[in-house]
Amino acid sequence: MRKIKLVIEYDGTAYAGWQIQSVAPTVQGVLNEALRKLTGEAELKVRGASRTDAGVHALGQVADFQTSSTIPGKSFAMAVKRHLPDDIAVISSEEVDADFGARHNSVGKEYRYLIVNRGPRSALERERAWHVPVRLDIEAMQSAANMLVGEKDFTSFCAAESDAEHFVREITSVDVERRGEIVEITVKGTAFLRHMVRIMVGLLERVGTGKVSPSEVEAIVEARERDPALMTAPPQGLYLVKVLYK
Amino acid sequence: MRKIKLVIEYDGTAYAGWQIQSVAPTVQGVLNEALRKLTGEAELKVRGASRTDAGVHALGQVADFQTSSTIPGKSFAMAVKRHLPDDIAVISSEEVDADFGARHNSVGKEYRYLIVNRGPRSALERERAWHVPVRLDIEAMQSAANMLVGEKDFTSFCAAESDAEHFVREITSVDVERRGEIVEITVKGTAFLRHMVRIMVGLLERVGTGKVSPSEVEAIVEARERDPALMTAPPQGLYLVKVLYK
Repeated sequence: MRKIKLVIEYDGTAYAGWQIQSVAPTVQGVLNEALRKLTGEAELKVRGASRTDAGVHALGQVADFQTSSTIPGKSFAMAVKRHLPDDIAVISSEEVDADFGARHNSVGKEYRYLIVNRGPRSALERERAWHVPVRLDIEAMQSAANMLVGEKDFTSFCAAESDAEHFVREITSVDVERRGEIVEITVKGTAFLRHMVRIMVGLLERVGTGKVSPSEVEAIVEARERDPALMTAPPQGLYLVKVLYK
Repeated sequence: MRKIKLVIEYDGTAYAGWQIQSVAPTVQGVLNEALRKLTGEAELKVRGASRTDAGVHALGQVADFQTSSTIPGKSFAMAVKRHLPDDIAVISSEEVDADFGARHNSVGKEYRYLIVNRGPRSALERERAWHVPVRLDIEAMQSAANMLVGEKDFTSFCAAESDAEHFVREITSVDVERRGEIVEITVKGTAFLRHMVRIMVGLLERVGTGKVSPSEVEAIVEARERDPALMTAPPQGLYLVKVLYK
């Protein structure tokens, strides 16, 4: 069996997330189906590096699958196109070592979160960003963001329904930038807990609107329990930008 | 009767353009309906500055309507929100002089056209940009774009089905810029013919891919007839950015 690695872009709006389920369309489910049609292999199973939530987008999700097909590795991206809907695109494909795993070989991930920060809502970005009408204080948000960097127990930033066994993760950078009406938050780390980026962004929004002071962030981290006052930012602003490998 | 001016953002994907028609949903039609519900005035008619085509977007369309409603001018934007779908947003509203006309008072317009310029198609930008897989030569495109600036007879850049009576228009600037995988073309002018920006972009794409040389552009303008070899760029890359008034 050969092992193929894919890089995938998708618009998460129409999907119940990455992970396959029987009751709703998912990106993994649609991709499985497309690759099965292409190869004729009814048992083919694609595995992703990140289980993105419903409504979350990806610019560079990475996935792998095993196949006996003779299609050249680099040709899968083009070949599978006709079996995919417009909102899922395979950007590139290549053959990799048989022991490669998109998830277990990944050494880091980069996420981006977009906020439309202006009074009126945006018609064009409604499924691509979170609308925050109150003017955000970017400097305060960056001060708070700096407190989230490092190897820490991130229990405070984990969804209650997580099945994680330990909660220590390493965040390598959190950058907050304004470009006109758009506030862009870039989070890089070695690994992430369920909803972790969205809970971080929920906290940063509260700092940006003055409801939480940057000096309170350390205590929130150290509490090591999910604070019900911390909201989870909505999914449509989140993008999995890339997955890193050695 | 009072006159109200609106600034409107919309995602044109789901609409058969701005202009009202009986057979398909249009932005003007939906907006009329929303304002009629809000004011209770069954005859209310909103008039736009630009008749954008099916699939074309707007960041700053301008429209006006007459009303006897006592709602303060600045409050219409918020008040009409609950009658509008998510893909149409009124950004601002104000009361203006009774003789104001969004169309006849406009002294200029700015359009933006976005191209995703990379090999693989984009899932996220599929309804927001044109996908051109061949690497575009931005310098050649800018040279060609400079030949389109000025007061000229733009018959060569007008849709065959236009009802225009004369074809002289003034283009004040055409700027071509690359930002990573995105090529952005900004066109400013005093007035535009039907499909004019999209036909200009269709020509610039042919220059960018080397099929037409910048030196041929002058002859194309001077021919003063619609060249069937000039393709009309697809609508989803076009944005009406703003409408200018004195």
